[in-house]
Amino acid sequence: MSTTKRGLFITVEGNEGSGKSTQIKILADRLRSAGYDLLLSAEPGGTRIGREIRRILLHKENPELSPTAELLLMFACRAQNVDEWILPALAAGKLVLSDRFTDSTLAYQGAGRGLGSEVVLDIDRIACRGLVPDLTLCFMVDIETGLARAHARNRRSQEVETRLDEEETAFYRKVRDAYYQLANDEPERVKIIECNRPMSEIADDAWREVENFLASRIARFA
Amino acid sequence: MSTTKRGLFITVEGNEGSGKSTQIKILADRLRSAGYDLLLSAEPGGTRIGREIRRILLHKENPELSPTAELLLMFACRAQNVDEWILPALAAGKLVLSDRFTDSTLAYQGAGRGLGSEVVLDIDRIACRGLVPDLTLCFMVDIETGLARAHARNRRSQEVETRLDEEETAFYRKVRDAYYQLANDEPERVKIIECNRPMSEIADDAWREVENFLASRIARFA
Repeated sequence: MSTTKRGLFITVEGNEGSGKSTQIKILADRLRSAGYDLLLSAEPGGTRIGREIRRILLHKENPELSPTAELLLMFACRAQNVDEWILPALAAGKLVLSDRFTDSTLAYQGAGRGLGSEVVLDIDRIACRGLVPDLTLCFMVDIETGLARAHARNRRSQEVETRLDEEETAFYRKVRDAYYQLANDEPERVKIIECNRPMSEIADDAWREVENFLASRIARFA
Repeated sequence: MSTTKRGLFITVEGNEGSGKSTQIKILADRLRSAGYDLLLSAEPGGTRIGREIRRILLHKENPELSPTAELLLMFACRAQNVDEWILPALAAGKLVLSDRFTDSTLAYQGAGRGLGSEVVLDIDRIACRGLVPDLTLCFMVDIETGLARAHARNRRSQEVETRLDEEETAFYRKVRDAYYQLANDEPERVKIIECNRPMSEIADDAWREVENFLASRIARFA
């Protein structure tokens, strides 16, 4: 990394309909209340250029988008967020909270679209230059419940159904399995938060993981 | 490559103000007159998604675009062109003529922006999956003449000066040197066409290179 990292980098992952967006808001409020100087990032999206890339990625009129082009656009967005927002914020000692990061690409493109994790990690090395989250919360709901919620949300908001939401159940099963595999491979970093239960319980569970993590970091520097 | 290649892939490269665009039109006309079934591609640009990516890359309002994000956007555009246009056309036995390809990224991002050729070739392996041009014409003009032409063209067309045209002379020197290095490393594939002379001479020279190449291919399959 070109910038020395002094802050903390927490990422939030989740499968369709897990309630991830709501949980991030609750988590950000709690972190701010606890006195943390927070930068919120999001993928795809985030910076202004990141949001321009997001428009290409999620637009219904782009069904011809090739899997490889999609992968490279995801990482172009990530590289812009890393360079413009995340590395400078970490260098300034902030706590960065990112809605999705490379684990999403491992799950959705690597596993879901079958591109494989090696290709994803090869590009990650170039795009993120070794930046790995300190803690990753994975909000996981079972596929049937999650997809039913996601479709209801899209109907309510009269949002155009995005490309990703039109994929098959088999795809979502691979994505979910990939997150569990990540948590299995990196238990210290990746924490699964089960979401088939009331929202407040989920939020408390997530907060407990964050508190444990922060306490361990404080202990380490004490 | 997932698609068997039967056609021929010719790319056209050039530095600022070399007259590359005019030369491609002349070359395409001659190839069509000679009976070739032609696909014209262009980078950044080409496919509809490629043109959307081009807008982000060349827009004056995006000066914060990071070098790594720029590199990944270039290859996202290229991957889309390869998957949607180039591989299917080559499989159908067409002659593909692309206005810029990976050599541009080696010259502009690898050498010009100093990212290095290794990073560019690492992403190329993923984005293009081994697709290398059969013949590459490099239209080269000296930097002073080229930049004077490019600036005059932008004033005439009242075009917004693009990001790339605002870079320094030192940058363009690295780009030009990189093309000569490529021609030195791969003399069979990469042919330099000197452009400090009348347009018709340049066109005839380019056509001679293409004819020699096509003759050698026909001889090989005879």
